[in-house]
Amino acid sequence: MEAGETMSIGDSGKVDLEFVNVTHSIVQAINPVVHTPEGAVVYGLDKRMDHTPVIGDPIDMERFREIGREGDGVLCYIEDCTNANKKGRTPSETVAREHLRDALYSMADYDGGIVATTFSSHIARVKSLIEFARDIDREPILLGRSMETYSGTAKRIGIDFPSDVEMVGYRQSIEQTFERIMNEGKENFLPVVTGHQGEPRATLTRMGRGETPYQLEDGDKVVFSARVIPEPTNEGQRYQAEKLLRMQGARIYDDIHVSGHLCQEGHYEMLDALQPEHIIPAHQDMSGFSGYVELASNRGYTLGRDLHVTSNGNVIELV
Amino acid sequence: MEAGETMSIGDSGKVDLEFVNVTHSIVQAINPVVHTPEGAVVYGLDKRMDHTPVIGDPIDMERFREIGREGDGVLCYIEDCTNANKKGRTPSETVAREHLRDALYSMADYDGGIVATTFSSHIARVKSLIEFARDIDREPILLGRSMETYSGTAKRIGIDFPSDVEMVGYRQSIEQTFERIMNEGKENFLPVVTGHQGEPRATLTRMGRGETPYQLEDGDKVVFSARVIPEPTNEGQRYQAEKLLRMQGARIYDDIHVSGHLCQEGHYEMLDALQPEHIIPAHQDMSGFSGYVELASNRGYTLGRDLHVTSNGNVIELV
Amino acid sequence: MEAGETMSIGDSGKVDLEFVNVTHSIVQAINPVVHTPEGAVVYGLDKRMDHTPVIGDPIDMERFREIGREGDGVLCYIEDCTNANKKGRTPSETVAREHLRDALYSMADYDGGIVATTFSSHIARVKSLIEFARDIDREPILLGRSMETYSGTAKRIGIDFPSDVEMVGYRQSIEQTFERIMNEGKENFLPVVTGHQGEPRATLTRMGRGETPYQLEDGDKVVFSARVIPEPTNEGQRYQAEKLLRMQGARIYDDIHVSGHLCQEGHYEMLDALQPEHIIPAHQDMSGFSGYVELASNRGYTLGRDLHVTSNGNVIELV
Amino acid sequence: MEAGETMSIGDSGKVDLEFVNVTHSIVQAINPVVHTPEGAVVYGLDKRMDHTPVIGDPIDMERFREIGREGDGVLCYIEDCTNANKKGRTPSETVAREHLRDALYSMADYDGGIVATTFSSHIARVKSLIEFARDIDREPILLGRSMETYSGTAKRIGIDFPSDVEMVGYRQSIEQTFERIMNEGKENFLPVVTGHQGEPRATLTRMGRGETPYQLEDGDKVVFSARVIPEPTNEGQRYQAEKLLRMQGARIYDDIHVSGHLCQEGHYEMLDALQPEHIIPAHQDMSGFSGYVELASNRGYTLGRDLHVTSNGNVIELV
Repeated sequence: MEAGETMSIGDSGKVDLEFVNVTHSIVQAINPVVHTPEGAVVYGLDKRMDHTPVIGDPIDMERFREIGREGDGVLCYIEDCTNANKKGRTPSETVAREHLRDALYSMADYDGGIVATTFSSHIARVKSLIEFARDIDREPILLGRSMETYSGTAKRIGIDFPSDVEMVGYRQSIEQTFERIMNEGKENFLPVVTGHQGEPRATLTRMGRGETPYQLEDGDKVVFSARVIPEPTNEGQRYQAEKLLRMQGARIYDDIHVSGHLCQEGHYEMLDALQPEHIIPAHQDMSGFSGYVELASNRGYTLGRDLHVTSNGNVIELV
Repeated sequence: MEAGETMSIGDSGKVDLEFVNVTHSIVQAINPVVHTPEGAVVYGLDKRMDHTPVIGDPIDMERFREIGREGDGVLCYIEDCTNANKKGRTPSETVAREHLRDALYSMADYDGGIVATTFSSHIARVKSLIEFARDIDREPILLGRSMETYSGTAKRIGIDFPSDVEMVGYRQSIEQTFERIMNEGKENFLPVVTGHQGEPRATLTRMGRGETPYQLEDGDKVVFSARVIPEPTNEGQRYQAEKLLRMQGARIYDDIHVSGHLCQEGHYEMLDALQPEHIIPAHQDMSGFSGYVELASNRGYTLGRDLHVTSNGNVIELV
Repeated sequence: MEAGETMSIGDSGKVDLEFVNVTHSIVQAINPVVHTPEGAVVYGLDKRMDHTPVIGDPIDMERFREIGREGDGVLCYIEDCTNANKKGRTPSETVAREHLRDALYSMADYDGGIVATTFSSHIARVKSLIEFARDIDREPILLGRSMETYSGTAKRIGIDFPSDVEMVGYRQSIEQTFERIMNEGKENFLPVVTGHQGEPRATLTRMGRGETPYQLEDGDKVVFSARVIPEPTNEGQRYQAEKLLRMQGARIYDDIHVSGHLCQEGHYEMLDALQPEHIIPAHQDMSGFSGYVELASNRGYTLGRDLHVTSNGNVIELV
Repeated sequence: MEAGETMSIGDSGKVDLEFVNVTHSIVQAINPVVHTPEGAVVYGLDKRMDHTPVIGDPIDMERFREIGREGDGVLCYIEDCTNANKKGRTPSETVAREHLRDALYSMADYDGGIVATTFSSHIARVKSLIEFARDIDREPILLGRSMETYSGTAKRIGIDFPSDVEMVGYRQSIEQTFERIMNEGKENFLPVVTGHQGEPRATLTRMGRGETPYQLEDGDKVVFSARVIPEPTNEGQRYQAEKLLRMQGARIYDDIHVSGHLCQEGHYEMLDALQPEHIIPAHQDMSGFSGYVELASNRGYTLGRDLHVTSNGNVIELV
């Protein structure tokens, strides 16, 4: 089943499942909508409101607005609140792409090593990295198990993704590839590796510890096209990884990224489009919900009446 | 009606109102308890769990534990969540007093101006300031309208408060007092003034702007026995006030304070004592509640069932 | 004298002054270089390393590299350290432009009021605002004294700037313009106003207080294409201004901006280009210098020997 | 050589070394002073200005003032800048002791496990823990290699330290002690263990992972009489350790501590006492120095003239 399609579910013949196209840090993201005789139930899975994604179609706001108006409207909207405490609008992937282009082009004259890392699952970002690597006359190579898995799949299922890029997943092959890079000259390559969160066993962290044949030298550039996931363990690991890389002389370019989750103005527009009767904030703890509850309250919803804050495993009965 | 007393309310003869003694940044603080045939309703107004307050009796935890066990127990507990996101235990006023003593005694040899500020309503703190001023051979004088109001009242209603301290409330009298201080020598006095939050018209801020006859000189000490209330407007004003004081040469001693509100371990102990059937967090927005909701959830309460998060003005029906 | 030009200064005939083109938040920014018999002295005034500025030429890195290599090289480099504690590379104005485009285009369907604010002196940003306003079928109008001054000058001196945009500087004319906007329909205009830092008397803040004929309504958008200058007084004012705007129903889009100052990787590249004999960090206090001193130390400079940290007004003798 | 003593060093007979008594988080702390014909050189090692330390004598400010006035005065003052960016005065150990007393006494009625941790080298704090444990009818036991080393030494060299407290250093003995505690009842003991920074192999972290015979239960208290050293790796480890402890049901009381280093007002008073001709801030990077440089500049010192900021390994020649 693909974005835009609908199928009947259950035996009654009265309930339909629809997939609405949305935009996120992965490709082919959808939000499921269950059409029931009492109204639609929209499950707002992870998304960004992107009108100019790098891969695929823009978020289908027109369809969301239709669902909000047609029949009995929206009975219930369950929404991902990851960024609900952040002001403003999550920028389009196009903005991250321009940011990345600016960073990589600024290194065009550098004749040493450049290494980049990002979320392996972020196919649009990996695509941009591949393209800009070529623009500055470097051969991109994807290195690391999850890099190979995600990008390989993207290629296979026909995503608009460079088909001719080298991908290397196994540890031994990675070492051989690094040896080849060192032999042919670091200045001709741009390895795209795993390790954006400083994971101790990821390829980039191993490079920082000097455990791979790739030798970082003073002035070499490391590009983190990702944000540190804000949790102390994570921050500690990433800090360590950067420290190791710096000790080898690497220069760090970080935070070249946009979030895949709606900030407050995106949530505002979703409520405006769907006009749901009931709202259930999800995917966060109480503190993470707070910005969303405030937003919904300002739009006339009331906690306990049509705005339902709960924990996982509880049943909310809507009449 | 005083702490420890109970009176019948309503016509049924079945409902009693009790005041339980608690400890807070003001004296004679109580938490009201309404005893109904369905159980007790405890209204957890602002409090700290202080077993060694500087003025008055310790918090009456024994009575709270009794209320938790007797009859039908506690039907509902409404709780102030001001500090519900803060770890640990709010220290006793005794700890703030020792901190203040240490700061003022360290200035015993200084022969220039020392000025202090705190919440006018914080009678225990004002008392400590008066006593330590005298310990280092300085005459304390309370200056500012609200200083006079609160401390005057404390004296009148028989609080254990120094009866012989000078208090000056009117602007003109304050100016005259400052002139007297300058004539007799700043080193003999310790003015306790209003302005702990940098309020633009408070006495301390006026001193910072050089608008009073009191002349601050290089090395003079200003003691903030208060914390900045964390809100940008406030922080801006306080920052400005400190900057003005520093430009006159003042040395700043700040944050000599303990909060008047329970932190998480105090909330934990209150729940342990009361064992309430229902809980309603209060006095905060959704973000402020979050630590409390997590705490209560860990103790087996469930949002929407026996843990009720709501906004002002909503009615929650129990039973 | 323009970027790229050189003139002789003093009587000796041995000292030349050169203006090297750089990129910053204002147009026509330059860095002066004094060529002396002992080597060049480069005064690194405010700049960003922008290879794709929205107005004007890219930073002239080629010339900086030449200056570093020719004759006796660079005797001394004085550098602006505003962002010296920030990691990574300051993005190009192109990135801010894409971010702004994304925000404004996302409002294309909105049929109420949209208002934007930015630094009046930031001509490239004002230009982008004008262009995107037109792209979404709104008439841009620049409002506020400094808006008129800067943009008027830009037009007059022949900057590549829209010549046909309306600019209104005087208070009375601003009120009349707002009345006209209200009469003709807010949805047809995009006022670009002063007040990005929440200055109490700026146009935007007055709009927030409801002191202008422009009536903000629920859902109207306010775009801050600027960052809050991080200083408590400022932060307090901006917070107040946003609060007022929100109380009127406005939705806030903030931080749509890139800095005009080099971050650490820009500083790294400047040192690489100039290879100066001596370095003097400037425009900051000791804390602001610290990242720069660390960077220079890693590149072999030594405090007190060829890396000179000082306060304003001191004389440093080189040679 | 002890605090207060002086000995001749070198062959000239003109240079004396003196140890001045100071107060710090360890006992018997001193600051060395070298008396030369050109004046005294004071090496300001780690210290707090404590007039009421829990163990030992107060800081000898009178002697510092004498050194500042006698003979040629102080040629050079080298000062530890650990807390030089922090406002106010570092409180006395007495304040931490009152804070700790308040926390432990508040647990007097608890009949489950209470565990505490602090710096093993902080003999005064360990002493307070031992005393308060006994005050609430629990037997204190020191557990962990470094606990045994430091406290054992303190006892041996005649520090005023409880001589009858049990100390266990070896892993196997620690396990046996925990078994005994579990057999005789957790409510009778207060283990003081290593692990205040969440070190992965420390005793407390092992308790959090359930690797010791001591079983934490819901409601058990863990007291951190220490502050997290602010560095990401550290913060990550401590966060992990607390998370593990909480998963076992532990309640956390943290930050019961005062620093061992002078804050700004302590530095101000040291400069006032010593009146040094030259100052060299130490033990920090440029960012850590900044508050000190500002303070010294306000008192008339000038960078490069009589205020010398440098890195390790450089020689500063004072005439």
